[in-house]
Amino acid sequence: MRPSGRQTNEMRKISIETDVTMHAEGSCLIKCGNTHVLCTATIDARVPPFLKNSGLGWVTAEYGMLPRATNTRMRREAKEGQSGRTQEIQRLIGRSLRAGVDRVALGERQIVIDCDVIQADGGTRCASITGGWVALKLAVQKLMKAGDVISDPLINPVAAVSCGIYAGQTVLDLDYPEDSEAGVDGNFVMTGGKLVEVQMSAEGSTYTRAQMDALLDLAEKGVSELTAAQLAAVS
Amino acid sequence: MRPSGRQTNEMRKISIETDVTMHAEGSCLIKCGNTHVLCTATIDARVPPFLKNSGLGWVTAEYGMLPRATNTRMRREAKEGQSGRTQEIQRLIGRSLRAGVDRVALGERQIVIDCDVIQADGGTRCASITGGWVALKLAVQKLMKAGDVISDPLINPVAAVSCGIYAGQTVLDLDYPEDSEAGVDGNFVMTGGKLVEVQMSAEGSTYTRAQMDALLDLAEKGVSELTAAQLAAVS
Amino acid sequence: MRPSGRQTNEMRKISIETDVTMHAEGSCLIKCGNTHVLCTATIDARVPPFLKNSGLGWVTAEYGMLPRATNTRMRREAKEGQSGRTQEIQRLIGRSLRAGVDRVALGERQIVIDCDVIQADGGTRCASITGGWVALKLAVQKLMKAGDVISDPLINPVAAVSCGIYAGQTVLDLDYPEDSEAGVDGNFVMTGGKLVEVQMSAEGSTYTRAQMDALLDLAEKGVSELTAAQLAAVS
Amino acid sequence: MRPSGRQTNEMRKISIETDVTMHAEGSCLIKCGNTHVLCTATIDARVPPFLKNSGLGWVTAEYGMLPRATNTRMRREAKEGQSGRTQEIQRLIGRSLRAGVDRVALGERQIVIDCDVIQADGGTRCASITGGWVALKLAVQKLMKAGDVISDPLINPVAAVSCGIYAGQTVLDLDYPEDSEAGVDGNFVMTGGKLVEVQMSAEGSTYTRAQMDALLDLAEKGVSELTAAQLAAVS
Amino acid sequence: MRPSGRQTNEMRKISIETDVTMHAEGSCLIKCGNTHVLCTATIDARVPPFLKNSGLGWVTAEYGMLPRATNTRMRREAKEGQSGRTQEIQRLIGRSLRAGVDRVALGERQIVIDCDVIQADGGTRCASITGGWVALKLAVQKLMKAGDVISDPLINPVAAVSCGIYAGQTVLDLDYPEDSEAGVDGNFVMTGGKLVEVQMSAEGSTYTRAQMDALLDLAEKGVSELTAAQLAAVS
Amino acid sequence: MRPSGRQTNEMRKISIETDVTMHAEGSCLIKCGNTHVLCTATIDARVPPFLKNSGLGWVTAEYGMLPRATNTRMRREAKEGQSGRTQEIQRLIGRSLRAGVDRVALGERQIVIDCDVIQADGGTRCASITGGWVALKLAVQKLMKAGDVISDPLINPVAAVSCGIYAGQTVLDLDYPEDSEAGVDGNFVMTGGKLVEVQMSAEGSTYTRAQMDALLDLAEKGVSELTAAQLAAVS
Repeated sequence: MRPSGRQTNEMRKISIETDVTMHAEGSCLIKCGNTHVLCTATIDARVPPFLKNSGLGWVTAEYGMLPRATNTRMRREAKEGQSGRTQEIQRLIGRSLRAGVDRVALGERQIVIDCDVIQADGGTRCASITGGWVALKLAVQKLMKAGDVISDPLINPVAAVSCGIYAGQTVLDLDYPEDSEAGVDGNFVMTGGKLVEVQMSAEGSTYTRAQMDALLDLAEKGVSELTAAQLAAVS
Repeated sequence: MRPSGRQTNEMRKISIETDVTMHAEGSCLIKCGNTHVLCTATIDARVPPFLKNSGLGWVTAEYGMLPRATNTRMRREAKEGQSGRTQEIQRLIGRSLRAGVDRVALGERQIVIDCDVIQADGGTRCASITGGWVALKLAVQKLMKAGDVISDPLINPVAAVSCGIYAGQTVLDLDYPEDSEAGVDGNFVMTGGKLVEVQMSAEGSTYTRAQMDALLDLAEKGVSELTAAQLAAVS
Repeated sequence: MRPSGRQTNEMRKISIETDVTMHAEGSCLIKCGNTHVLCTATIDARVPPFLKNSGLGWVTAEYGMLPRATNTRMRREAKEGQSGRTQEIQRLIGRSLRAGVDRVALGERQIVIDCDVIQADGGTRCASITGGWVALKLAVQKLMKAGDVISDPLINPVAAVSCGIYAGQTVLDLDYPEDSEAGVDGNFVMTGGKLVEVQMSAEGSTYTRAQMDALLDLAEKGVSELTAAQLAAVS
Repeated sequence: MRPSGRQTNEMRKISIETDVTMHAEGSCLIKCGNTHVLCTATIDARVPPFLKNSGLGWVTAEYGMLPRATNTRMRREAKEGQSGRTQEIQRLIGRSLRAGVDRVALGERQIVIDCDVIQADGGTRCASITGGWVALKLAVQKLMKAGDVISDPLINPVAAVSCGIYAGQTVLDLDYPEDSEAGVDGNFVMTGGKLVEVQMSAEGSTYTRAQMDALLDLAEKGVSELTAAQLAAVS
Repeated sequence: MRPSGRQTNEMRKISIETDVTMHAEGSCLIKCGNTHVLCTATIDARVPPFLKNSGLGWVTAEYGMLPRATNTRMRREAKEGQSGRTQEIQRLIGRSLRAGVDRVALGERQIVIDCDVIQADGGTRCASITGGWVALKLAVQKLMKAGDVISDPLINPVAAVSCGIYAGQTVLDLDYPEDSEAGVDGNFVMTGGKLVEVQMSAEGSTYTRAQMDALLDLAEKGVSELTAAQLAAVS
Repeated sequence: MRPSGRQTNEMRKISIETDVTMHAEGSCLIKCGNTHVLCTATIDARVPPFLKNSGLGWVTAEYGMLPRATNTRMRREAKEGQSGRTQEIQRLIGRSLRAGVDRVALGERQIVIDCDVIQADGGTRCASITGGWVALKLAVQKLMKAGDVISDPLINPVAAVSCGIYAGQTVLDLDYPEDSEAGVDGNFVMTGGKLVEVQMSAEGSTYTRAQMDALLDLAEKGVSELTAAQLAAVS
């Protein structure tokens, strides 16, 4: 019934290749099916002004899409400015990753996660969070190896998956053909078995609490698979 | 336990004054405790380009805050551009209101909802959705009276309330002192007893599915009270 | 002969409600007929760079209009930037208010006056100046009560009124139907019986010195009535 | 008593050189003392949208200053955008010139006046209006010669001069040393012996009606001298 | 003597992988040593306004760098706008590629080349031109296969290489350590054995005509190697 | 054969008038035929941040065109921002002038060169470099007279000329009618008999090394004439 022939609770193939760029302190290319996102982590000794001399660390994120990452070429944001959608996504990525960080253990430094979508087929913000955590972890491992950080500030992986109601059915990990048709869809961010963020929207539609529960069940299944892939990638 | 002395499941006092400006086709001043938002509805014969000759209507929203609506004066967005937060909020308001609109019945016209926060004490986006629906309804009533719209495109009110975890307790309708301390908080938009949008975020924290359920219970209670106030205001 | 039926030298009904918002150090809602402006005063310990360590105070103003304050909805300036007209108006308000301030007595601090037009029917810049002075005075009273300012830096009220030539007649306090038809109109700002600013423009028209004199007579009458309302409001 | 040694009612030396650029339909370099402004007129067959098919002409103006036209180098507006002051000035120039145009006689076309300050020593907006009219007249003469305009749409010159109160005295045609010290100063635009625009501001000061009268007397004298120079230049 | 140990006339290893993204009509990932650029070609039925109904085609280019393509993270241009350097580069790429296009044969359509630097180590604009031509060729092959273009508009490859004077020696294909030290360096674009563009700059230095000749010799050698790689990639 | 009747190796008439504005530390009006550029030099005690406490000086340039410097009026960049072309030109001017500066001898100060095109007829960037050097030299002479600079940091003039292939012939110093038709044209910057910058572009065309050599010969001739005019102007 799904365009891809997947089961309703079946994820796309996940692959996470690490250390893909020579300059970044941490990096990976995450592929969730045909959605490919390059994630890099940059360690910056300077924190934002509101954290100066606080002893606390910070993690932030920026997100972008190459103009031809999509089926129809999009305007280049460098020419016309970041859209509201882009800003909303990068705020979500940063907030989600911070939920999994012990900012005292990280110490007063900032890690910037750049998530750039090379190829898009739905679920780019979820792939960015999941891949972003891997890049973040690799950068932190470098800090720990160098003795700059003593106690690991990243206990559990943070991962995200989209779920939605497509053709009347609750489905896991929507690809673009599903995403563009779904009346209800959203993103679930989890860490250590708990929820970090739920964003479930209906465009011209509504959903019941029973459906919400079913979507949460799917999300838990998807995130556990993503988390396994994250842990395999960073060890 | 709450700074305001309210029960955990107690809403702030709601008041909705209608027809507060002479020019708009629909308007109200909604007060949720000390949060005051002026909502106006403007009927525009032109729809966005992607709807031309579709026969379908559109509802969109814009949101702003007066610089001294808050305790500390904020920069004027007209001088420095809309923040990512503002854009995110106005996209949410528009999407939420559209969930309650029969766009065929509305006919090929656009209604623009302006939500301007006169005084802020937490929950401004929820008050904007709830008050925005009232302004929208009043404008539609005018269209129906004039015979421009035959069948009512607005069946059920759309209303929104914030819930969160404050001092370890799930609480309903956070005011600013709670909002600024809560590790977990979010917004629930509902119509006709169903969910339209759930946005539940954790800043440096997480929450369980049991807590999520408790928050949904609170939201249902709050929305039913808001809906009663909406219906009283427009009849 | 005037659309409103007023005498040529008759002001619209003036009302000034004070302390209308909970956060601002001074505030009022001024109504000049159907023109309604919310004015707030914010005390800021920091002065602009050119006044650092000068011992002198500063008063500045910002002006905005809600998009549906007018008969036809205007673009939201937060989305597209402040127009030249808006910048011109807020420069005028700030300059006018400073004419009534003893900047030595005020001491090295800044007071920011925000004037936001809730409903417009002509004369919004004059109402902003007149109401802005009331908000300023209330903020200064707070400073004096707290002992932060010893000698009152505001001796005489600053007030403003528009005059123009409508249908061949010199008239006082133009409303929008007059303003949009008048070939000649302008604004007179006065304090303590003296002139602060005269801006008298002709769009596709001209005027004689005799007419200028008649307009100055009308302005003096209007300002004296506004000043009485200001003094009543702040005492 | 004046820094330049001039009488209180004495203008600076005026010179208007015409046809100074090879491309523009009309042009002049106006020198009012050390203030030098290059004014060009461009004839454009297209009018602004609101005048399409109206049969009416339009005159508009743009204003700029070379970065080192002033004693201290100013930021280049092309890099950082037009200031509020610049926009205010170019609106004034356009409005003033239109007061002297029979827009029916001009026919449905637009003339754009560019006023670029090459060297500044006070009074640049007045010199722009006075020189702008000369460039406009020269362009209109070309249209009449070509038979594109039959009846002259420019009956009387439009000219402008600044006046102010310097060291307690009312003075005519302020240069920069006076302008930067004057508590009260402003601009008077006249045509055919009548007023077009009066803008008289006080910065931290006030003025009486008697002073206003004296300033108007000075302005009349100055404008009559400017008008003579304009007529000499265009004949 | 070169940091990389290469001969003065030795290119870095070139690799061109084609069809690397699923959406674009043509694409390649070009690697010149550690400089990696993703090039995509988008076919657009619409040409720029100045070519409407001309029957002529157009090729244009846009260029960007991922923020962490470089050793030190750069600001994201989507947040702060394209720098002058970026605009200069993308103008060069478009102009260079057009030199190798028969715009009549291409027909009235536009092809947009996006060049996004994934990893930078000097020579990114040259790699963009060389790889951009490959993406362009692949898109044109698709048009020819579909019968939309009959005669091949791309006769000879366009390729570019950088040369410069490093440590007193003329060297071919500078990498970043050389580029950042070279007093003189530039880019040579060639097609069919002829020059398209020469840009040879000195920063705080100069060069003789003899050196210019030596640099041209090196460029010819480099471009012939690049051209071989291009032809291998597209056949 | 050339539209102007000049020989292929004949420059336009050069004139350089110095000290043309009262405020700038150095200034000239350079005329290369009908191309007129006003160049001013501003001495600034502050250097860019990356040079603080380095003891080294800096020279930078900004470039602009009056809207009606050209045959068809151009948009005013102050209203719509600097184009990529403008930024590219001003970067070239600054880089070129710095090639002729001993930055140690200049000392830690910045000189800003403003080049504003009053009238354009081709070759504005070359005239800006040539005239810019004259303004720079005059400012440096002032510094040396005042004893602020001891050893002359400007040994040889920097001058620039355009060359191109017009109607199949290599020609020197293109005017606008030639420039707009030439398939190949470019700019040569030289100092002390050596090259500083070569930028030779083909729009839809190519050129051989033999032609490149012929263009370099023409450039050397042109620059030697410009240099003579520069030296005459500053002595």
